[in-house]
Amino acid sequence: MTNPEKVGDSAETPLRHGSDAYARAGVDIAAGNAAVARYREVTAAWRHPSQLGAIGGFSGLFAMPGDESSALVASTDGVGTKILIAAELRRYDGVGRDLVNHCVNDILVVNAKPLFFLDYLAVGRLDPEVAAAIVAGVQAACRANDCALLGGETAEMPGVYAPEHFDLAGTIVGMVERARVPEPERVRPGDAIVGLPALGLHTNGYSLARALVPRSEWQTTVPESDVRFADALLAEHPSYAREVRAIRAVAQIKVMAHITGGGLRENVVRTLPASCKAIFEQARWSVPPLMRELVRRGGLSVEERYTTLNMGIGYTLIVPTSDVEAALAAAPGGRVIGWVEQRRAGDAPVVVHAERGA
Amino acid sequence: MTNPEKVGDSAETPLRHGSDAYARAGVDIAAGNAAVARYREVTAAWRHPSQLGAIGGFSGLFAMPGDESSALVASTDGVGTKILIAAELRRYDGVGRDLVNHCVNDILVVNAKPLFFLDYLAVGRLDPEVAAAIVAGVQAACRANDCALLGGETAEMPGVYAPEHFDLAGTIVGMVERARVPEPERVRPGDAIVGLPALGLHTNGYSLARALVPRSEWQTTVPESDVRFADALLAEHPSYAREVRAIRAVAQIKVMAHITGGGLRENVVRTLPASCKAIFEQARWSVPPLMRELVRRGGLSVEERYTTLNMGIGYTLIVPTSDVEAALAAAPGGRVIGWVEQRRAGDAPVVVHAERGA
Repeated sequence: MTNPEKVGDSAETPLRHGSDAYARAGVDIAAGNAAVARYREVTAAWRHPSQLGAIGGFSGLFAMPGDESSALVASTDGVGTKILIAAELRRYDGVGRDLVNHCVNDILVVNAKPLFFLDYLAVGRLDPEVAAAIVAGVQAACRANDCALLGGETAEMPGVYAPEHFDLAGTIVGMVERARVPEPERVRPGDAIVGLPALGLHTNGYSLARALVPRSEWQTTVPESDVRFADALLAEHPSYAREVRAIRAVAQIKVMAHITGGGLRENVVRTLPASCKAIFEQARWSVPPLMRELVRRGGLSVEERYTTLNMGIGYTLIVPTSDVEAALAAAPGGRVIGWVEQRRAGDAPVVVHAERGA
Repeated sequence: MTNPEKVGDSAETPLRHGSDAYARAGVDIAAGNAAVARYREVTAAWRHPSQLGAIGGFSGLFAMPGDESSALVASTDGVGTKILIAAELRRYDGVGRDLVNHCVNDILVVNAKPLFFLDYLAVGRLDPEVAAAIVAGVQAACRANDCALLGGETAEMPGVYAPEHFDLAGTIVGMVERARVPEPERVRPGDAIVGLPALGLHTNGYSLARALVPRSEWQTTVPESDVRFADALLAEHPSYAREVRAIRAVAQIKVMAHITGGGLRENVVRTLPASCKAIFEQARWSVPPLMRELVRRGGLSVEERYTTLNMGIGYTLIVPTSDVEAALAAAPGGRVIGWVEQRRAGDAPVVVHAERGA
């Protein structure tokens, strides 16, 4: 499998303030990396002949039966522990949209267009109205992305889930012309990295957020903002399909990355050739108040914050400098957030220049 | 959505012996039916133009892009609470095979051939060796079914799952020539129902089994057998693809059903025209000792046992009487387990003639 399983939502150990406490959560990241390495071993023995190379591991590609010029593209993901906040607040419709949009973005990275989606909802105690609210969110986001909701499974498993708890995962299948799959080899030093703004944590970093912001504070306002923690924490994970289409119409897009678990530090580099490194200059965009507050409370190092949180950037595109102006005109929320440099022996693959606390 | 979400693994309330106690679990079945009804409402507002009618709701069909004569077929499912027994016994490799084979059978019902599979593994605490053992089972079953393991997601969510608990779900995508999708309208009174043997509970009825067989008995032998409960409970959910291919080569198959949650009573009728009912005569096959013991301990009525358990039949095919001999010669484990009769106003859609305790 060239698309080793992603391991998501790692840092779950309850945290005390201070980065030494946060470092403890790193144990889980190590377990995640070990699991990915073991998956590679397990799946190395056999590979289906129709499996194609994937870009950055956001999705898997499979040669379209009967049409070698196209590929089916698929990705499975979950909402992660954002569901615990949704369950606690009894706000169920957003998680379905979060899930579908997350999956749409995962296949958008290879320029794939959604075909259909299936959801998996597991609950401790089946409340038909809650289940229907969740599936209504899934259906609404499918419709908005012109993607069929082709099926799903609802499982009631009280021995596994607490009565009010649930888990929500889903699988998207899309298609792409193989000639349109981005090629990391085209990336050159000097290319610009364009970032599209995140609306919130999206579906990552909720372990950390829950540890740092107790339930008792959720109805209070995030410092330096007029938004309550509850709303900031449940802010939607958007689909970037419209912006990417607009940019693609006017600019060359060399590669793209969906900024999920692993943050800017780990996702952008997955789409770079070994000869290139990514430089991010945070002064070029504004980090949302919720992220600044989590950084402050957790005493997160630059490395920690840009690995665990999206820090305000939900999706990136690498374009030649000559196309930057056109790209930004097509997607007004976008910013140049960094650039590509040549990577020499011993260089780190990613560098983040961040302001204090951001 | 013509394929309303299935609601699986209902009867989870801990049960005391006696059918009155079992009836209490029926509350969850009612919630499941209510959820399915609400899903229908929620999803009725919009339907993607490429979605095709499904047969019996085992999977969803989507017109193949660029080839109107074919369809993509997809299904999502989970292993259900069988995972709690696997986790307790620390036997992890089987659940991956159970999951893939379950999904293979779900799309086999419309004659679809697997293309690729993606898994979703959620854990309380990520143990790379346990995760690798689970994924190794998924990979082995994918390989056995000539199905790519195209990707997957592993999520660590300690606030949702107990440390040793996990959940495992997956999505399969296959394809079929649309002309080969079975048509329930071809079913006629007099047709035979051929059953293929189940190896165990497969992935349904574990709620009931766990309530009726306490952990302390798992290393003891199932009455009237030489198999321990632990092994009988974890017996594999097989793929029926080979048998179905063999039968298809020599006999006309009108419709098929995968006997999952809902048992023979609820799955076979999903593929019958309104003018037909199914009659099962249990004396024609032997009910495995584990099922007989669960029936005895639970004091299950005939209706309860044939709704909650597969009672020894994992997959059914409806064939014209003239083809029965050829079909059984092609799949030696198969048996004629019943037949189709004309359904008149007021008739139940399914009748089970069962021996005492079976």
